[in-house]
Amino acid sequence: MADTQATCPMESHFVRGEHTLKVPMSLFRENRERLAAVLRGNTAVPEKGAFVVLQGGVEVPFNDTDISWPFRQESYFQWCFGVEEPDCYGCIDVTTSESILFFPRLPAEYAVWQGTLYTTDDFRKRYAVDKVYYTDEIADVLSERGASVLLTLNGLNTDSGLAAREAVFDKIGQFNVNNTLLYPEISECRVIKSPREIEVLKYVVKVSSDAHRAVMRTVRPGLAEFQAEAAFMHHAYSVGGCRHVSYTCICGSGHNASILHYGHAGAPNNRVLKDGDMCLFDMGANYCGYAADITCSYPANGKFTEDQKMVYNAVLDARNAVMNAAKPGVSWSKMHLLANRVMLGGLVKGGILVGDVDQMILAGLGEVFQPHGLGHLLGLDVHDVGGYLPGHPTRSSEPGLRKLRTARTLKAGMVLTIEPGCYFIDCKLDEALANGDQAKYIVREELERFRGWGGVRIEDDVLVTETGVENMTDVPRTTEEIEAWMTVGRNSKLPQECKFSDA
Amino acid sequence: MADTQATCPMESHFVRGEHTLKVPMSLFRENRERLAAVLRGNTAVPEKGAFVVLQGGVEVPFNDTDISWPFRQESYFQWCFGVEEPDCYGCIDVTTSESILFFPRLPAEYAVWQGTLYTTDDFRKRYAVDKVYYTDEIADVLSERGASVLLTLNGLNTDSGLAAREAVFDKIGQFNVNNTLLYPEISECRVIKSPREIEVLKYVVKVSSDAHRAVMRTVRPGLAEFQAEAAFMHHAYSVGGCRHVSYTCICGSGHNASILHYGHAGAPNNRVLKDGDMCLFDMGANYCGYAADITCSYPANGKFTEDQKMVYNAVLDARNAVMNAAKPGVSWSKMHLLANRVMLGGLVKGGILVGDVDQMILAGLGEVFQPHGLGHLLGLDVHDVGGYLPGHPTRSSEPGLRKLRTARTLKAGMVLTIEPGCYFIDCKLDEALANGDQAKYIVREELERFRGWGGVRIEDDVLVTETGVENMTDVPRTTEEIEAWMTVGRNSKLPQECKFSDA
Repeated sequence: MADTQATCPMESHFVRGEHTLKVPMSLFRENRERLAAVLRGNTAVPEKGAFVVLQGGVEVPFNDTDISWPFRQESYFQWCFGVEEPDCYGCIDVTTSESILFFPRLPAEYAVWQGTLYTTDDFRKRYAVDKVYYTDEIADVLSERGASVLLTLNGLNTDSGLAAREAVFDKIGQFNVNNTLLYPEISECRVIKSPREIEVLKYVVKVSSDAHRAVMRTVRPGLAEFQAEAAFMHHAYSVGGCRHVSYTCICGSGHNASILHYGHAGAPNNRVLKDGDMCLFDMGANYCGYAADITCSYPANGKFTEDQKMVYNAVLDARNAVMNAAKPGVSWSKMHLLANRVMLGGLVKGGILVGDVDQMILAGLGEVFQPHGLGHLLGLDVHDVGGYLPGHPTRSSEPGLRKLRTARTLKAGMVLTIEPGCYFIDCKLDEALANGDQAKYIVREELERFRGWGGVRIEDDVLVTETGVENMTDVPRTTEEIEAWMTVGRNSKLPQECKFSDA
Repeated sequence: MADTQATCPMESHFVRGEHTLKVPMSLFRENRERLAAVLRGNTAVPEKGAFVVLQGGVEVPFNDTDISWPFRQESYFQWCFGVEEPDCYGCIDVTTSESILFFPRLPAEYAVWQGTLYTTDDFRKRYAVDKVYYTDEIADVLSERGASVLLTLNGLNTDSGLAAREAVFDKIGQFNVNNTLLYPEISECRVIKSPREIEVLKYVVKVSSDAHRAVMRTVRPGLAEFQAEAAFMHHAYSVGGCRHVSYTCICGSGHNASILHYGHAGAPNNRVLKDGDMCLFDMGANYCGYAADITCSYPANGKFTEDQKMVYNAVLDARNAVMNAAKPGVSWSKMHLLANRVMLGGLVKGGILVGDVDQMILAGLGEVFQPHGLGHLLGLDVHDVGGYLPGHPTRSSEPGLRKLRTARTLKAGMVLTIEPGCYFIDCKLDEALANGDQAKYIVREELERFRGWGGVRIEDDVLVTETGVENMTDVPRTTEEIEAWMTVGRNSKLPQECKFSDA
């Protein structure tokens, strides 16, 4: 069945409307072929009869109701098959790279409520796989094909501590199942992005950049934080076709800009922006499963004060230093420390800190002002898999470094965020001031006026190339660029002032 | 502790920014008092020592990742407490109506990532309850208070078939637990809305009406269906403060308008509107947990053809007939049949059907053209609870009526949707044409031009008053109103044509 593509002249795509990126289904075929090739090279995998078996995502109901969360495909399954429907299974014959999808057998009533009842042949063409059956046929199909071992997914996500969903189906007990081989191999495949994956990532990062630009022209004192969230999501969806964001939008203004994961249900972006506030807006869209993750920090009123400029430039210098230094062979941990050094150096210049920056790092001041890692792998998950796979550096226990979601050595084809920050977090400052080893570097009387000030994060999405990194993000970054962008074409009204009678 | 309110002069509210409805926490106190009063009147509940124990909603992770679905509170817990945070418990002392909330004890690190670590006293004031403790104290608190029986939630949702989450906590085994008394009583309380609940429902229905109006001015051939969804969500959130929709937006155009629950992941609103299409857009926002559920149907180009007018008016007449007839004491099943009769009568006038309408109903033609119920209870859930509680009519097995989510007799204080429809669904039409008892009423040659035409649904959210129903929905409904609204102030550009350089 290797000629499926040849018999399918009009390649099927993931696309939204007519104005968004067409993602060819061959992206997923190439992923499957990469995975199968790697597994063929693994001496623990038999030469014949090994099948990767993945279970797709399921609909998650909102408590006991008949409403579900809007379905998004589980990421490993998405990476292999790009299937938009829930409740599927997929298999890959390791020997031949042949792909088989299994869809649920739906009742006739489905046509009335959910739409077209596609045939297995419709799905075969839609997803450009070799064979399609119903999910109740898995055991029979694998038996007929003489499956000698099923490779299922079992492993812990190092960001959440949660286990991947291991495929289970009726009569799986009659097969020999190996659940240890697949996880590290497929996760490592996901770490290195293919040219086609990079194309999708560039698209979703561009859409998210544009959405941030749109938000910047909406922001002014009087706007509620969630109105920035609404503007972002609207631009990303309406213009970019991104139905989902990759994580809950973080729209912190003023003091809220110092809360790293602000915006959740208990702190739902509901403060009103005030003149003089800094804003820290961390938002990323999702297209065809692929995530963007961008943070822009700027003054609510569009003009930086001297203090705002000082802190902002300390972070921007850190970001620039990493952009210039990052390349294949470089340790991500070293990049983290580089960013911390430059940022702390900026605070020394700004008069908040005094002393030797290397000594400050040793004393743990990096984590006081930036209690998170420099950045993380990015792909189908916003905190993408593969950060701490076997054979790569383990998580450090040192301040700062222990927060890193990966400590790997950079490799061409990786996509990461570079996101240095500087925050004035009361409990962290109190701890530092109470700790003689740290307090001695802090100029108390200067620091005090930054209490409640918030924070700055500058987050770009970059591709590691053969020689350095390519920044896929396209937003105003220098203070001059930001002030210029926020002056021209700014929205003159708050959303709640736009009445229908104005139309 | 009955004087808690007296000691809290500034009542706490649910509010978003400064421009959205302030929902007082007394709404939830009144709900608790209503429930406790009902339980005190239940002879199976002991006079002293009975406590309602509810477990709040939990964060739901997206598969094995560290990203969660945006949290929304579980509806029974929301109804009692209005708490925005996940992972809580709540108790009500049935004898005194005293309320106790239990919040998770969070680690210090929470302050860095999620924000302020509120004290139990902060939460007591925020949610206007009598007492607040940590969740690890539940067993001790209930013991000290001499709990003789815990009333927990156990029952099946009649729309989903799923069970409510019954509260479980460490050491619950040392208590006497009754899980049968609470469910029917609290569900019945939820059926009849209080004046404060009605105020919130009116707000979210008004916001959703305005969002539909905004969408109508965006719609034109060339727009992708999801751009209507994006416009709706943006207006509802930015202007109305509604972060969530109550269900996945259904934005069907052309043939898709005949798919009752179109818009899901497998059919994600991704068709481009064509000149001559009918649009069926079913969307409702959510505010403070309360749901709206509104459908507008209109031509993509803003002008009805004669056929479109005929089908639309058949449905509008059905809606008007129900609006005029519905009042306390009236059976919802009778309203369903009334709507069917009027709609089928419209199709007779339009020449698609021929014969006696009452005979058609007996032959099941109502369900052929409207394979869903007339409407449903609406509240914290879009398909709200209480549709088939004990002591009320059970689900019919008759065509059409069997689809109803409730068969109850109307009562003042109920909120329902009235949503007659008429759809041209291929499989339903094929079945009817193959069934002599139904086919004899169908004018085949007239029907054929409606193949692929789509459908019409007109859905309003109404409050049952003492004398009739009050329509809370405020959107253009007659063909003249729709054409006028879609002519004035129409957006001239598609979203993808609005470049930053235009600003």
